[in-house]
Amino acid sequence: MNQPTAMNDLLAFQRQTEALSSIAERLGWDQETVMPRGATEQRSEEMAAIAAVLHDRRTDPRIGEWLDAARPETARESRIVELIARDHARACAIPAALATELARQTSLSQGIWAEARANDAPEAFLPALDSILVLTQDAANALVDAGFGGGDPYDALLDDYEPGATQADLAALFDSMRPRLVALREDVLGAGNPPAELQGRFPQESQLRLARACATAFGYDWTRGRLDLAVHPFSSGRWQDSRITTRVVETEPFNCIYSTIHEVGHSSYELGIDSDHAFTPLGRGVSMGVHESQSRIYENQIGRGRAFTGWLHGRMSDMMGGLSVADADQFYRTVNRVAPGHIRTEADEVQYNLHIMMRFDLERDLIAGRLSTDDLVEAWNARFLRDFGIAVDRPANGVLQDVHWAVGLFGYFPTYALGNVYAGCLNAALRGAVPDLDDSLAQGDAEPAVEWLRENLQRHGGLYEPRTLIEQATGAPVTAAPLLDYLEDKFAGIYAL
Amino acid sequence: MNQPTAMNDLLAFQRQTEALSSIAERLGWDQETVMPRGATEQRSEEMAAIAAVLHDRRTDPRIGEWLDAARPETARESRIVELIARDHARACAIPAALATELARQTSLSQGIWAEARANDAPEAFLPALDSILVLTQDAANALVDAGFGGGDPYDALLDDYEPGATQADLAALFDSMRPRLVALREDVLGAGNPPAELQGRFPQESQLRLARACATAFGYDWTRGRLDLAVHPFSSGRWQDSRITTRVVETEPFNCIYSTIHEVGHSSYELGIDSDHAFTPLGRGVSMGVHESQSRIYENQIGRGRAFTGWLHGRMSDMMGGLSVADADQFYRTVNRVAPGHIRTEADEVQYNLHIMMRFDLERDLIAGRLSTDDLVEAWNARFLRDFGIAVDRPANGVLQDVHWAVGLFGYFPTYALGNVYAGCLNAALRGAVPDLDDSLAQGDAEPAVEWLRENLQRHGGLYEPRTLIEQATGAPVTAAPLLDYLEDKFAGIYAL
Repeated sequence: MNQPTAMNDLLAFQRQTEALSSIAERLGWDQETVMPRGATEQRSEEMAAIAAVLHDRRTDPRIGEWLDAARPETARESRIVELIARDHARACAIPAALATELARQTSLSQGIWAEARANDAPEAFLPALDSILVLTQDAANALVDAGFGGGDPYDALLDDYEPGATQADLAALFDSMRPRLVALREDVLGAGNPPAELQGRFPQESQLRLARACATAFGYDWTRGRLDLAVHPFSSGRWQDSRITTRVVETEPFNCIYSTIHEVGHSSYELGIDSDHAFTPLGRGVSMGVHESQSRIYENQIGRGRAFTGWLHGRMSDMMGGLSVADADQFYRTVNRVAPGHIRTEADEVQYNLHIMMRFDLERDLIAGRLSTDDLVEAWNARFLRDFGIAVDRPANGVLQDVHWAVGLFGYFPTYALGNVYAGCLNAALRGAVPDLDDSLAQGDAEPAVEWLRENLQRHGGLYEPRTLIEQATGAPVTAAPLLDYLEDKFAGIYAL
Repeated sequence: MNQPTAMNDLLAFQRQTEALSSIAERLGWDQETVMPRGATEQRSEEMAAIAAVLHDRRTDPRIGEWLDAARPETARESRIVELIARDHARACAIPAALATELARQTSLSQGIWAEARANDAPEAFLPALDSILVLTQDAANALVDAGFGGGDPYDALLDDYEPGATQADLAALFDSMRPRLVALREDVLGAGNPPAELQGRFPQESQLRLARACATAFGYDWTRGRLDLAVHPFSSGRWQDSRITTRVVETEPFNCIYSTIHEVGHSSYELGIDSDHAFTPLGRGVSMGVHESQSRIYENQIGRGRAFTGWLHGRMSDMMGGLSVADADQFYRTVNRVAPGHIRTEADEVQYNLHIMMRFDLERDLIAGRLSTDDLVEAWNARFLRDFGIAVDRPANGVLQDVHWAVGLFGYFPTYALGNVYAGCLNAALRGAVPDLDDSLAQGDAEPAVEWLRENLQRHGGLYEPRTLIEQATGAPVTAAPLLDYLEDKFAGIYAL
């Protein structure tokens, strides 16, 4: 085969695959936002059809031939070839029958999980979870046999979400964080004078208006995106079309506002990638951890800082009338209130990573066969009591709270905490590079932060491996220290520790 | 090849193709309703990717092998095989390079047409139209060579939109209609006492509320559909998900209302097909003419009748306050007002078919090479003056008004008039079968009509050829007489002829 032809054919084929993958994602958005409720059966058939097309393309034998013949001429081309080869090898490693069965079982078990959670009935879900676990172990072993994960099944799974990460590295990182997080948590919860909660009811329309204003403050490009309601907020799409969703609870406006800012972080990352990378494997966020670093730094280090919340307090008072927290300093404390709770997605910055560490340990035990699904509820509840000092009151607030395992996402959870660590590193570098950032944030303008992130991180898309990307952006090795320093400093101020 | 296996493989493959085709249609809906305006380039790449996948599947050589080996066991299976074979043969008849070039040129020329129309500059569009015409002639000849159209290139094109129809039959049908339509038009326009126009401004929200009430009156299933705004109203999708769109002009509420009812007709047809047919070639409307018969009978014979407009007058008065036309009889006349005009899509029931006949003759001349695109403007203007007695005032009101030719839809126009003829036949049968229909319509309940249409026509989907389907439903041969009788009777009443 002619070499330039092979490279061109490979890129043209990939371009079409990326476009089809983008279509599948748009279809998922449609399902969660605007689809008529009677269309679920049809939609699952449509999703299965495009998933089958995508699987056929990822395992297409011509990719192997093109890869053998292609001679990339630039570092960028080499990276593209590397990413296509990795994806192709991973897809080919898993036998077709296993891939089909995993898709079928995870599709089924999502509904089973939702019903079990609604009924607080883990026993209705655990058999399905066990099937998923066995299939996932098989898939992980198949990946190990194909050379992924350096012989470690969990690492072979993790590699899908955070290329290059290993459970040993992550365990060491998390172990280094735990003592300071636990100490901070105890200090905060033991301190007197806790911040007040926000009182009142905030109508949907005014919450959405404020959410839009926040998205605009973070430079969200409305010509390439839109905001809709969804049961669970998410972002969707890339390049010229990355949409966000939020949810509204009348008594909890911060839920709507900070979900929006979080999703703006994800979407801005996708929209910030150089358009040259569009429809190549470089044209999307490089890993889940890096993705979460963007959503988290937007939401927390920037969005929940004193400067931005000062502006938010003014806008919110203007748009919604007098607030129960009338003073901007008290408002800042209210936004960052730390309280005991069972639910990961509602956790504050101090406790969030402890939720993740617990899941990380449990899922490693599950994959390694050290923990059976029969014993999972007991293990969860015991660990939760030990880490958080409160008992799980009902399964929906315990092992049934997250969908991840039900849909086969083992190896995904640690990327949330890793994203927080990355966000800590990026925030330290950002504050050094843009020392007067808070002046802009106090005016409701996060553009200087967004520009720095776009220039130093977002625009590269998949060009560098995750850790390399963060280290290039920050000029320093990745450690948990900046995050922990930031948290201790911030909450010492809020709780007068 | 094992025969049952061949049949099963063929159906499974087709099922996936139908699902992918449904996805492409949903993507088109997204583009026209909710897509961010900066996403056009990305969307055109996505549309091209799924179109390429669909084209590859339609021409997949395995279909030929399955068709050779399959032995259908029921009339339904035979019909499915017949429709798959026809689609496969048509797709294979057109050389890949020609299909690609047609797709590329029509995609380009749509934008050129839109700009030329905005600038009233036909000379900017005609070269693009000429390219499309030459490619379409090539495609038509390729179809003729493959045995379609009985040796006639125009009929080979027509066959895509109205299987079984021929230009000779249609010309004879239209010739039989013309004298009575022309006479009726002259009588109506020459009569004194024309109906008043509706005065006032009607806010978007109240127009949409009324449009929703009308859709509900026609039994539109909101659990399997939704209503959105679009520049040009259309319907989209089938089985469990068929959505409609409308537009709002503050001074023209009938535009919004009757566009909605028209699109409800199209969507109800798709939603009314037996669910057994879903994801087979039987699971969609059988032809453009039959489709238009449904939208037209909903909109005109039912929606613009005295009984339904009586209910509409009451609802509209309630929802929008006092109308300039305060009396239900006068309101009925206003809804059915006949006036000279250039635009097909705004034409009344009396003149609409004359617009179609003109396009039918011009496009037959274009395809046959009797008329060149250089002479098209002159030919259009001369014919318009002859048929309608008024001169074309500007190209946007003349040859540039319709998008069809710009996107290669030659052979499509006559199906609109044929749909009106079918609607006339169906209306006569419906009124015979449901003699007290007007009592329900006067209460804002069109369900008895919808049920009759669903039972006798819609539910069959693609099971029968178009004309057979209409004749089975009505129990009579298709002629223009019922439509013409209806029009003469209706407008004699309105204009006191």
